[in-house]
Amino acid sequence: MKTIKISEAVVRRLPIYLRFLNELSKKNISTVSSQDLGQKLDLNPAQIRKDLAYFGEFGKKGIGYDVDYLIEKIRHILKLDKVIPVALVGAGNLGRALCNYNAYLKDNMKIVAIFDAQASKIGESINNLKVKPMEDLAAVIRSLHVRIGIITVPAVEAQQVANQFVEAGVEAILNFAPVIIKVPGEVRVHHADFTTELQSLAYYLD
Amino acid sequence: MKTIKISEAVVRRLPIYLRFLNELSKKNISTVSSQDLGQKLDLNPAQIRKDLAYFGEFGKKGIGYDVDYLIEKIRHILKLDKVIPVALVGAGNLGRALCNYNAYLKDNMKIVAIFDAQASKIGESINNLKVKPMEDLAAVIRSLHVRIGIITVPAVEAQQVANQFVEAGVEAILNFAPVIIKVPGEVRVHHADFTTELQSLAYYLD
Repeated sequence: MKTIKISEAVVRRLPIYLRFLNELSKKNISTVSSQDLGQKLDLNPAQIRKDLAYFGEFGKKGIGYDVDYLIEKIRHILKLDKVIPVALVGAGNLGRALCNYNAYLKDNMKIVAIFDAQASKIGESINNLKVKPMEDLAAVIRSLHVRIGIITVPAVEAQQVANQFVEAGVEAILNFAPVIIKVPGEVRVHHADFTTELQSLAYYLD
Repeated sequence: MKTIKISEAVVRRLPIYLRFLNELSKKNISTVSSQDLGQKLDLNPAQIRKDLAYFGEFGKKGIGYDVDYLIEKIRHILKLDKVIPVALVGAGNLGRALCNYNAYLKDNMKIVAIFDAQASKIGESINNLKVKPMEDLAAVIRSLHVRIGIITVPAVEAQQVANQFVEAGVEAILNFAPVIIKVPGEVRVHHADFTTELQSLAYYLD
């Protein structure tokens, strides 16, 4: 039930707040000010207050934010309080690395299936998941109610994998292939190309 | 020579423009409108015009942007027209995957050295680079004039690696470990945690 449209920039900052809040919570720190958040995350405190104000009045003047309450709220906003099964195509180095991240995803978002087009990889075990052939993709995605697909195949194969994800009913795609993929308007795509991260970092060199 | 401070959001969009412009250039498409860019990249055309206007008057009304000229300008703004040597610590799955990306980095940014703390990995060859021990880090970084460091080690080791990078004179760090690292103010850190990408994607599920 979205009543207002929140800008993508804000949505992208929320997981960053969440990560830091989780670290505070682990250290049994119960309140945090927007100043502290801003200093840690290299963001303007006013920006942080504005971001969080989108979702309601979380903070208290002069005291700050209740860490655990804010975690719960952001998790709810990001829908991390629901189970979100994820599938991954491309059992190469990057695919393996991402599957190994599963351990960190204590949120209800988990990679539940891995696929690869190469016969030699089928049946291999990665982090307790067996690599499945592409022919099984649609059936597995439906039976496991997969909602998000991750693409870690070479650029030339990415569009075809995206098509298969869309046909199987996936609602959002995280694409690591260094190519722009086309999907119908109702499917959300994020690109997670590490080259763009490196390139934007170069700007800050003197 | 920065005369104006450009917001991080803009700096992060420039590589995305660049990737798409490179695709157009490969297809011998010589001009592009902000409408076309906006449609492809799911961004408001007015936003794109505003972003690019930071850097000068690139576009022509009614015609659009000259693709190759814009590529050259963005590359210059992002300092990709200079050689930027990069070093990586952590020769695991993710480290390997990133080294394999080197092929895509036709820009002058290249991973020139890989390090790992595990004795068993030293001397292994990844994409024509031999994995070096951590003891060599400072000397190698200085001799190869490395300016950017990439961290792909487990969370518990990330801060120590960051310290070594900073001591060796690295100016910017791309951190893939799911933990916030602390560095002196003059060093720029970007976090490239894939969990935050996944989490912001979840927001867009219905």
